[in-house]
Amino acid sequence: MDTKVIKPEAEGRGDRTLKIVGTSPVRPDGVPKVTGLARYGADYALPGMLWGAILRSPHAHARIRSIDSSKASALPGVKAVITSADFPEQKYEFVGPERVAINFWHMTRNVMAREKVLYEGHALAAVAATSKIIAEAALRLIEVDYEVLPHVIDVDEAMQPGAPLLFEDMITRGIDPPPNEASNIAKRIEFSIGDLDAGFAAADEIVEMNFKTAPVHQGYIEPHACLARFDNKGQGEIWAASQGHFVVRAFTARLLDMNIGDVLVHPAEIGGGFGGKTVIYVEPLAAALSRKSGHPVKIMMSREDVFKATGPTSGASMTVRIGVKRDGKLVAADGVFKFQAGAFPGSPVMNATMCGFAPYNIPNVRSVGYDVVCNRPKSAAYRAPGSPISAYAVESVMDAVAAKIGMDPLQFRLVNACRTGTPTVWGPKHAHDGCAETLKALLAHPAYAAPLGRNQGRGVASGFWFNNGGESSATVHVNEDGTVVVATGSMDIGGSRASMAIMAAETLGIEYEDVRAIVADTASIGYTHVTGGSRVTYATGIAVVEACRKVITELCARAAMIWSVEKDQVSWEDGSARRAGAGKHEPLSLKAIAAKRALTGGPIGAEASVNAGGAAPGFASELCDVEVDTETGSVKILRFVVAQDVGRAIHRSYVEGQMEGGAVQGIGWALNEAYVYDDAGHLLNAGFLDYRIPVASDLPMIETVLVEVPNPNHPFGAKGAGEVNIVPVMAAVANAINNAIGRRMTELPMSPPKVLAAIHTAPGK
Amino acid sequence: MDTKVIKPEAEGRGDRTLKIVGTSPVRPDGVPKVTGLARYGADYALPGMLWGAILRSPHAHARIRSIDSSKASALPGVKAVITSADFPEQKYEFVGPERVAINFWHMTRNVMAREKVLYEGHALAAVAATSKIIAEAALRLIEVDYEVLPHVIDVDEAMQPGAPLLFEDMITRGIDPPPNEASNIAKRIEFSIGDLDAGFAAADEIVEMNFKTAPVHQGYIEPHACLARFDNKGQGEIWAASQGHFVVRAFTARLLDMNIGDVLVHPAEIGGGFGGKTVIYVEPLAAALSRKSGHPVKIMMSREDVFKATGPTSGASMTVRIGVKRDGKLVAADGVFKFQAGAFPGSPVMNATMCGFAPYNIPNVRSVGYDVVCNRPKSAAYRAPGSPISAYAVESVMDAVAAKIGMDPLQFRLVNACRTGTPTVWGPKHAHDGCAETLKALLAHPAYAAPLGRNQGRGVASGFWFNNGGESSATVHVNEDGTVVVATGSMDIGGSRASMAIMAAETLGIEYEDVRAIVADTASIGYTHVTGGSRVTYATGIAVVEACRKVITELCARAAMIWSVEKDQVSWEDGSARRAGAGKHEPLSLKAIAAKRALTGGPIGAEASVNAGGAAPGFASELCDVEVDTETGSVKILRFVVAQDVGRAIHRSYVEGQMEGGAVQGIGWALNEAYVYDDAGHLLNAGFLDYRIPVASDLPMIETVLVEVPNPNHPFGAKGAGEVNIVPVMAAVANAINNAIGRRMTELPMSPPKVLAAIHTAPGK
Repeated sequence: MDTKVIKPEAEGRGDRTLKIVGTSPVRPDGVPKVTGLARYGADYALPGMLWGAILRSPHAHARIRSIDSSKASALPGVKAVITSADFPEQKYEFVGPERVAINFWHMTRNVMAREKVLYEGHALAAVAATSKIIAEAALRLIEVDYEVLPHVIDVDEAMQPGAPLLFEDMITRGIDPPPNEASNIAKRIEFSIGDLDAGFAAADEIVEMNFKTAPVHQGYIEPHACLARFDNKGQGEIWAASQGHFVVRAFTARLLDMNIGDVLVHPAEIGGGFGGKTVIYVEPLAAALSRKSGHPVKIMMSREDVFKATGPTSGASMTVRIGVKRDGKLVAADGVFKFQAGAFPGSPVMNATMCGFAPYNIPNVRSVGYDVVCNRPKSAAYRAPGSPISAYAVESVMDAVAAKIGMDPLQFRLVNACRTGTPTVWGPKHAHDGCAETLKALLAHPAYAAPLGRNQGRGVASGFWFNNGGESSATVHVNEDGTVVVATGSMDIGGSRASMAIMAAETLGIEYEDVRAIVADTASIGYTHVTGGSRVTYATGIAVVEACRKVITELCARAAMIWSVEKDQVSWEDGSARRAGAGKHEPLSLKAIAAKRALTGGPIGAEASVNAGGAAPGFASELCDVEVDTETGSVKILRFVVAQDVGRAIHRSYVEGQMEGGAVQGIGWALNEAYVYDDAGHLLNAGFLDYRIPVASDLPMIETVLVEVPNPNHPFGAKGAGEVNIVPVMAAVANAINNAIGRRMTELPMSPPKVLAAIHTAPGK
Repeated sequence: MDTKVIKPEAEGRGDRTLKIVGTSPVRPDGVPKVTGLARYGADYALPGMLWGAILRSPHAHARIRSIDSSKASALPGVKAVITSADFPEQKYEFVGPERVAINFWHMTRNVMAREKVLYEGHALAAVAATSKIIAEAALRLIEVDYEVLPHVIDVDEAMQPGAPLLFEDMITRGIDPPPNEASNIAKRIEFSIGDLDAGFAAADEIVEMNFKTAPVHQGYIEPHACLARFDNKGQGEIWAASQGHFVVRAFTARLLDMNIGDVLVHPAEIGGGFGGKTVIYVEPLAAALSRKSGHPVKIMMSREDVFKATGPTSGASMTVRIGVKRDGKLVAADGVFKFQAGAFPGSPVMNATMCGFAPYNIPNVRSVGYDVVCNRPKSAAYRAPGSPISAYAVESVMDAVAAKIGMDPLQFRLVNACRTGTPTVWGPKHAHDGCAETLKALLAHPAYAAPLGRNQGRGVASGFWFNNGGESSATVHVNEDGTVVVATGSMDIGGSRASMAIMAAETLGIEYEDVRAIVADTASIGYTHVTGGSRVTYATGIAVVEACRKVITELCARAAMIWSVEKDQVSWEDGSARRAGAGKHEPLSLKAIAAKRALTGGPIGAEASVNAGGAAPGFASELCDVEVDTETGSVKILRFVVAQDVGRAIHRSYVEGQMEGGAVQGIGWALNEAYVYDDAGHLLNAGFLDYRIPVASDLPMIETVLVEVPNPNHPFGAKGAGEVNIVPVMAAVANAINNAIGRRMTELPMSPPKVLAAIHTAPGK
């Protein structure tokens, strides 16, 4: 990998020399993953286990008049059949903070359709039987009386008056006074600062464009799978691959009306999530079937199930207008972002409205969002959810504006780049730098000056992502031989076992090889929020370091006991306790203290839980070179450079992997990925043969530039590194295509037919 | 169950009213166990898993000239073959405190024979293959060249000069100067107080008798089984049923020369252990096979394997002499206890020498023990290891002494009962009462005055057991809904999940149903020693209560934040934070504080680790009524009463179950259990059809009297309750038989042929 590391001045905090942080030691999850020893959601089995199967709607929209499962129940080998009647009704209320509010009335209906099915593939009954074949045969015996209803797939159509309504009584929230009539618009959001009209009036140039993006799936390799075992008074256990087993626990307990403590969730290895495994689908069904049958029940989705019934990110319809002075200073920006949420409210449109203009210092901004339901699977989080969509629109317009005033697109962005103190459209000022540093890194990169050939083009774009903190827990235990185990509640989707082990080894002053990090189950560690929002290295890392510091305090106290001196006479340095005062004293290593633990009070360990504020946002600036085949419209990615502010890389090659992965997913989103529906609302390409994600031969080696502007709120300066890398990608590709063929591609995916059509239209659209 | 509870004055500590401690709420492990949902060692499986099989010696004693496994390795489906060559050599040294010293040179040879096989069933190679059938077929292809050696089974024969030597260079330890010649006597132990000769000289009556006991197996229902999965650089996981997964981890890591932290052991549900699962057999073999093959490997013992190759307790040959004044005061006691250790040193003879006379205040005592190897499976711990064996001898002689001076046997014991301050033969004075209280409870029991019929007899006996403390760890976490999870490192073999939940609920002031207790894996919780020595309710209980108290401190701090008052203004009472000061304040319940956890600092939890001293010993006095069929020699147990000082019962019916279980196991030991060997040293009764443990129809309902003399060192007064109940049983039965037929049975088991033979000898032997 061609990797450059930029270390800005801010890096050196004190004279501390980091020994392990920033290196790339062997990944503990590497060998098990490549040898097949890793245990994923589908790899669990228990004696007496039943196989669960799910009946899914063949209709995009229909009322369920009745479900008769008597014939299925009577089939030999069938041990339980469930429908929505097996789940208690939930209150209609939005719980939690606005950006991630949950409505359990919606969730229970998405998990198991109640009055209506709202998309093809919507679950409406489930069976547990002694074999998969019997369970599937039983599904065919369930008789459902549907009243098929008209449906709507596209977001613009769904917003039209007279569109088929998914919820006949849903009144748009966020409009005062509320509208009189129900619609598919679940919510309107508006943020603004300054005076938009005055801003545009002061502009020398204004560019306005419309965009449309397709919903794309996270495309994780591992379909959803779980095993549930429920017993006495409903106490139970679930083994599942998820991005947050505490959230699986909380949601499942809620849907089953159980005590949270009575559901124990074991974290399986996860074969990719990218946001799509922060929600539940099969877990409450397996649990309910297990409770009803008295057997363990396993459910595995097929790839078709994953495409038809799990959350892609939203498709969107957007209008962005930007005004600029001739000197390149932005003066006004307006965006309207209409996101389809799928069958239930909850698209990431709020993130989109917040992130779109966030990289820039613009005095007058308005950002409006609409959350719109339609007859598709409910959207779920996908890598920096919402932000890449609005960035595609904003960064395309930024490119057009730069061209209009004849400025270099990176210089143009640098002139307007946000920094500490720049206001945001949602209120608080930016508290961290990083945006300008990524732009400078790209400006200095040899790729930016490299020559281009015929039909080749170069595009750049920038992006912003919040990065989260929040609740995390960790324990650190010293073993009898002085090796150390670190447990956290964070599912490892991007290398957190490695990064936690690094941070623990660095803090304790011991070797990386002497630390083993694991993900503990929900009963063995404190609450930890999902692995999402690029929060784990930051928040869980803080918990790990805090627990290590407690362990160091305890190690020093033990050393003081061994030496019969006061605690304050002992300090910790380089993995050993050292004694103050005159004379030469042999230091006591962690191993030596561990060996005497029983005589000095017993096992040595500590736990720490945090609700970490102070997360720093991520910025990325990216460069893409393409070559367009003007005969077929096919776009080849020649070169791709990701410059991302990661604060501080903890495990360097894992961070590089995150940056490469974000770029690759964005390239798929840009060029090829889309759901193809027929007129009846049936998905026609529910498989990886027809839904085209990038494969190795589609891609150049992604070049990564790790920009490190440390976050002072983290012991090692880490910022989240997992998401922002995807934000600029589609815009960078679109800008590169424009640079190659002189056509702005305003609809994703920029697949060969569309590119070819663009080539055949007049330039400038 | 007919249960009486004696509550001595010591009970009321302060005016605290216990709400849950001492009750019998629903056992969390109950329904899973009876419905088959509980997961035992053999219930784990993984994709790609291989089956391990073990080649075992057909000889009681032989030198291994060579092992040729080439044909086995070549068999299709065989993925790995291991022998002792796959395990590193260990140093010959005894590690740890004398009573439980471990010699890894021995352990690695017991797990996998090296130079010699030392008993029939001794493992000497193992195979992993794609099916159990292939693995077993491969065993038959392994060619071993044995040099068969003479063997010795009996302890007295093994001690004779000229006996076949298991270790040609083993010099008896504990003799100064050391003997010149090697022998099978691994160790001699002697404890003494006072002046033995003067004591016996002052005695009015002296009784001396010889005894012999048979080795008996713990008879757990679940054979040893495990699944191992080892990967990158040897990091691995083991699922195993054991009495201590931290010990499985430490031993396995040691035998495989790995970092302790690189072995993660998951606790499976355990189907009985009784001491026999504090050691390892299959775990290092499965781990080595997994490491060699790159696959998960499962090994399950058969029942025959369990009998032939896992530890029973020792058989013994003993001489006990007791001197008494006419008024009933004991003046002198002498015991010589020869224990066969099986194939490797390490019988529980030291415990036997310490416990035998411990219930009594005797000024002049000598207690001598011999640890003797012979060609039988290495002995393992069994419920109060060692103590029931010496108690059988001592309490039989005590009965004879009482008869000789014409004193009631309970009154005789009461006159001599130890109490706080009584010296022990091993040095320190008794620090707790309890012995006299159990005798008084039995004296007051209606059974003691009940009439007896023809051929019926009544026997009593008492017993002592140390009860341990030691290293334990616990975590307590408050869930989002205010329910609580308690995790400990103690395998639950006798109800500790229930008792930990009770102690947590009592301490926190919440409902038992709101607490879920689990056993955490070795990476998720601090080091915790084995579930053995009746240490868990005591030591792990202290850790749980300490963690709960930390949680209460944190809950009060959170309440203070919510109320914006100082921490010291808040106290915890009845599950709620209460605010000091004038005016009426609504208390904040645990649930209410949990709901605001995120706003007040994040998840609420705590961990505690202890190395608990202060454990109080257990005493039991027991009564047995028998009827002897004088035609067949068959003994029927008519009635059995266990009066045991449990300190304080935490989960009452679980404690009763422990007392009943100890009595039942002792009855089997007394009447029927024995290993039958042929002349070649082959075990003839390696199965439950031929090795006769008691079944329900052999037994009366065991009556339990819970004597509660609280241990002031435990928050609720608990003492260990799991073991001492077995200590007096064989003596009580023997004394009852003597009472019925006028014959002292001095050899176990007191099976019908032996009883019949005794009937046909002259009385008094």
